[in-house]
Amino acid sequence: MSSSFAFDPSPLQDICVAVDEPKNAVFVNGKFCKNPNLTVADDFLFQGINIPRDTNNNVGSFVTTVAVDQLPGLNTLGISLARIDYAPYGGLNPPHIHPRATEVIMCVEGELYVGFVLSNQLGNRLVTKVLKPGDTAAVAISSLSSQNPGVITVANAVFGSKPPINPDVLTKAFQVDKKVIDNLQSQFWYNNNS
Amino acid sequence: MSSSFAFDPSPLQDICVAVDEPKNAVFVNGKFCKNPNLTVADDFLFQGINIPRDTNNNVGSFVTTVAVDQLPGLNTLGISLARIDYAPYGGLNPPHIHPRATEVIMCVEGELYVGFVLSNQLGNRLVTKVLKPGDTAAVAISSLSSQNPGVITVANAVFGSKPPINPDVLTKAFQVDKKVIDNLQSQFWYNNNS
Amino acid sequence: MSSSFAFDPSPLQDICVAVDEPKNAVFVNGKFCKNPNLTVADDFLFQGINIPRDTNNNVGSFVTTVAVDQLPGLNTLGISLARIDYAPYGGLNPPHIHPRATEVIMCVEGELYVGFVLSNQLGNRLVTKVLKPGDTAAVAISSLSSQNPGVITVANAVFGSKPPINPDVLTKAFQVDKKVIDNLQSQFWYNNNS
Amino acid sequence: MSSSFAFDPSPLQDICVAVDEPKNAVFVNGKFCKNPNLTVADDFLFQGINIPRDTNNNVGSFVTTVAVDQLPGLNTLGISLARIDYAPYGGLNPPHIHPRATEVIMCVEGELYVGFVLSNQLGNRLVTKVLKPGDTAAVAISSLSSQNPGVITVANAVFGSKPPINPDVLTKAFQVDKKVIDNLQSQFWYNNNS
Amino acid sequence: MSSSFAFDPSPLQDICVAVDEPKNAVFVNGKFCKNPNLTVADDFLFQGINIPRDTNNNVGSFVTTVAVDQLPGLNTLGISLARIDYAPYGGLNPPHIHPRATEVIMCVEGELYVGFVLSNQLGNRLVTKVLKPGDTAAVAISSLSSQNPGVITVANAVFGSKPPINPDVLTKAFQVDKKVIDNLQSQFWYNNNS
Amino acid sequence: MSSSFAFDPSPLQDICVAVDEPKNAVFVNGKFCKNPNLTVADDFLFQGINIPRDTNNNVGSFVTTVAVDQLPGLNTLGISLARIDYAPYGGLNPPHIHPRATEVIMCVEGELYVGFVLSNQLGNRLVTKVLKPGDTAAVAISSLSSQNPGVITVANAVFGSKPPINPDVLTKAFQVDKKVIDNLQSQFWYNNNS
Repeated sequence: MSSSFAFDPSPLQDICVAVDEPKNAVFVNGKFCKNPNLTVADDFLFQGINIPRDTNNNVGSFVTTVAVDQLPGLNTLGISLARIDYAPYGGLNPPHIHPRATEVIMCVEGELYVGFVLSNQLGNRLVTKVLKPGDTAAVAISSLSSQNPGVITVANAVFGSKPPINPDVLTKAFQVDKKVIDNLQSQFWYNNNS
Repeated sequence: MSSSFAFDPSPLQDICVAVDEPKNAVFVNGKFCKNPNLTVADDFLFQGINIPRDTNNNVGSFVTTVAVDQLPGLNTLGISLARIDYAPYGGLNPPHIHPRATEVIMCVEGELYVGFVLSNQLGNRLVTKVLKPGDTAAVAISSLSSQNPGVITVANAVFGSKPPINPDVLTKAFQVDKKVIDNLQSQFWYNNNS
Repeated sequence: MSSSFAFDPSPLQDICVAVDEPKNAVFVNGKFCKNPNLTVADDFLFQGINIPRDTNNNVGSFVTTVAVDQLPGLNTLGISLARIDYAPYGGLNPPHIHPRATEVIMCVEGELYVGFVLSNQLGNRLVTKVLKPGDTAAVAISSLSSQNPGVITVANAVFGSKPPINPDVLTKAFQVDKKVIDNLQSQFWYNNNS
Repeated sequence: MSSSFAFDPSPLQDICVAVDEPKNAVFVNGKFCKNPNLTVADDFLFQGINIPRDTNNNVGSFVTTVAVDQLPGLNTLGISLARIDYAPYGGLNPPHIHPRATEVIMCVEGELYVGFVLSNQLGNRLVTKVLKPGDTAAVAISSLSSQNPGVITVANAVFGSKPPINPDVLTKAFQVDKKVIDNLQSQFWYNNNS
Repeated sequence: MSSSFAFDPSPLQDICVAVDEPKNAVFVNGKFCKNPNLTVADDFLFQGINIPRDTNNNVGSFVTTVAVDQLPGLNTLGISLARIDYAPYGGLNPPHIHPRATEVIMCVEGELYVGFVLSNQLGNRLVTKVLKPGDTAAVAISSLSSQNPGVITVANAVFGSKPPINPDVLTKAFQVDKKVIDNLQSQFWYNNNS
Repeated sequence: MSSSFAFDPSPLQDICVAVDEPKNAVFVNGKFCKNPNLTVADDFLFQGINIPRDTNNNVGSFVTTVAVDQLPGLNTLGISLARIDYAPYGGLNPPHIHPRATEVIMCVEGELYVGFVLSNQLGNRLVTKVLKPGDTAAVAISSLSSQNPGVITVANAVFGSKPPINPDVLTKAFQVDKKVIDNLQSQFWYNNNS
């Protein structure tokens, strides 16, 4: 599992609107900036976070990310947003990690069972809470402390990697019959958030 | 799953040997420093990383951490070490995350199948390598970019948290029969690394 | 005007719930942590961000901050939220600075005229946008990249400081008749956001 | 008002003398480096900070900045300097903010009334001091904790932005008659520091 | 030789005037803050940087540091100053390192031969410059990018450490006759800057 | 002596394998990234750290660095390794500084006399320890908290710079007869670590 830690670049000028890397150059860590005199107000605008998304999929949820790839004006600002739509009765955003961000979640509508698990040193304690009553489909807005927070959906990374992890490793790590691992690795792993 | 990101404190003096927080105070982020004039050379010494550890456990491996709790002179230095002993033929250090560090692994003895999985955005690609031939039990030394890197063993955090995660959530997230989840949650989750 | 720049502390453990500094200690930069074994789920919960606020004041707006003082679990996480309620037809959040944060604003309801001014080097260019049609009172949610972003309302800091700035300085800086400055300094400066 | 916070890049090699971005590339956050083998001692030299500047302008002061644009060897070093010349009897450097730096001011000659205003949370307290007696024109040297500290002159940003801020917004924010705002917005805003 | 690298803490509030650690507490990395409501303008003032210092010592120079120990208001600001007085004709500030800061030097009076040596990777290239003509004693003002930059005078650290470094080590490292090392280690090492 | 302080870039994506700067571009601080889809497992592999090195040189030691130039996958990860081989009976790694890293040393074989000198503020105290008995040639593995830690060998930087430091400066700084300095500057300075 990728264990990279991270931090966002810090601005050295007022604004640094992200552009695709220039012709004849290759990838850099982060993004290049548009000439500040050529920036326009729309470089700082993302529209449509109010539009409900289709949650008719395996996990019953959909994540709409507003990070630097969607909103180039976020470049070097160290912050991003996401909207999560949940299907009524049982939609879930599966266990995941943001390798480059912390997160604050606000429940806008509906009722959400949320939580996080602490590390080994603290005994893998689970901290949970049910957020806000309501019986419709829930919607949450999440703020993340990075312009490119990343996401690793645990089940997808462990059982749906390409190529697959050696099944003997997973059989021992998860302490189950190898058939369970084979079955898990042969599933289609839907990705509700990339 | 805990998604905290992290960074180590940076020194504001030559040395800051960690001490337990003083009487009448409580926890702080990081550690307090010993009076520099009272520090001794042994504050900067950890002994016994050369001693083989017993790997006779469920996963066939044992991690010996040399971080700030074991070596107080590491305080504010942003670095730590670990020794991993593997049982011959199949010892493994199960899939895990270091929420506050990157890592470089050096195989000292034996042969190791190592790898990491990239995040959703890069399609959960698995990158692997077999390190160094040898047919005895393997030993690896790992350097970590934090004085307190932390570790989250994925299987333990997902199936062995206390209290357990709601099994319906895991049933849907892992797309298996609920009996598989019940079985996984009822196991004893050995922790080879805390 | 305070020109401090800033950055949030980074965690050295999974969680560091803020507590008042212990007896016999004084202020530190940031906060002390609760013993992690004594933390409860409510340390990570803030309730009531959905409740409309009274905007019947001089500027016609009210800011509800959810930062480390309101939500102690945010300590060391480098992120916070705010809700801004605006009175219908002309409520405004006056020109201000967050000395320790960047910000992303999401208009939840109504229509907002928003903008920012670039620095001297870029000619004090004003970048504006009208967010979302609607004719009711507007509500916005703001995410900030600090657990304690701070705010400096420009007019209040310049004309309502305690004690007042020497009026001759302001007369020259703003290039107006001294009576205008005297008048501005004698007003009551309502603070919609502290 | 631009609320960007900031931090300077940190060197990954001994020196990184700034050069204009290479042909076929566009702006990046920060600067490119000269090939270290082609650097010369003059890349690290700025001359003329001892030369008095003309302060015959609206505010009676002139700021000479020695930042990365003037001294390319400062690139990645996180520090810069400025000289401020003040006209005798009443020259002033108007209220301003450095969005990417803290500052220490040393009065070399003359007498300076200096101060800063704290944020809303601390009641916009004004902290002032008169530095050093003397009755000639004053000269100050300022050290700033960034290679590109930036400056936002408050009056210019609020009343002299291009295009102007909606006068109704300012009328309400400053709680004055709209004529005062119209008058302020129609002035010529001299910029003593860019 | 101490190779600690460093970074200054960043403020989480407007001001954090350093105070001695509270009763019943011990050293922390950095300083505790005074209650902001008890701070006074003098916490931000250092007087006397204009007073010439006596340079009648072995190296013919004297360094007056204005860092967090001398000016408590610098706490968390990441910047400091120093004045260096040089004796006429040959006063020198011996080769040294600031383990926690970069530096910009401004020659106020006299003529200074200044320089720095690059690291092994760049062939230990020496970069020098003679600053400003004049034949009187020179005075320089130095800005440093840390509130506690530290200093290691190379000759003092290598030959004047307490206890001394094993002379056989130095004999081999400096490739000289052991008598030269014995002689160097038996000298009195005047420290012009602590 | 170069006093640059440093910090490593932080990733904004999972991986950023270093490549030479692209055609038509020049040096940047740090490295460019390979297109992540073109990376291969070997980008993350360095082989041969187990091979003993020849220590038949003036100082009787050889340093094998595994930093970003040798292992491009380390780019943006903030960590590196080194192997140090010492000749039997008296091999030494001469006094040096890592301007951009802290270090943890593990003695794998043999016996090592190690230490560091504190800064002037702490009286240049020497802290030493003899690591692990053994009478063969020693081997140590060192972990460094930077992808490009750099090294400045003190004797080489002071007496072997190119061009040489003015000998009168060194005569006074080291308080020895000028002949000793002339002799030191005329030596061949072997560099065991670049």
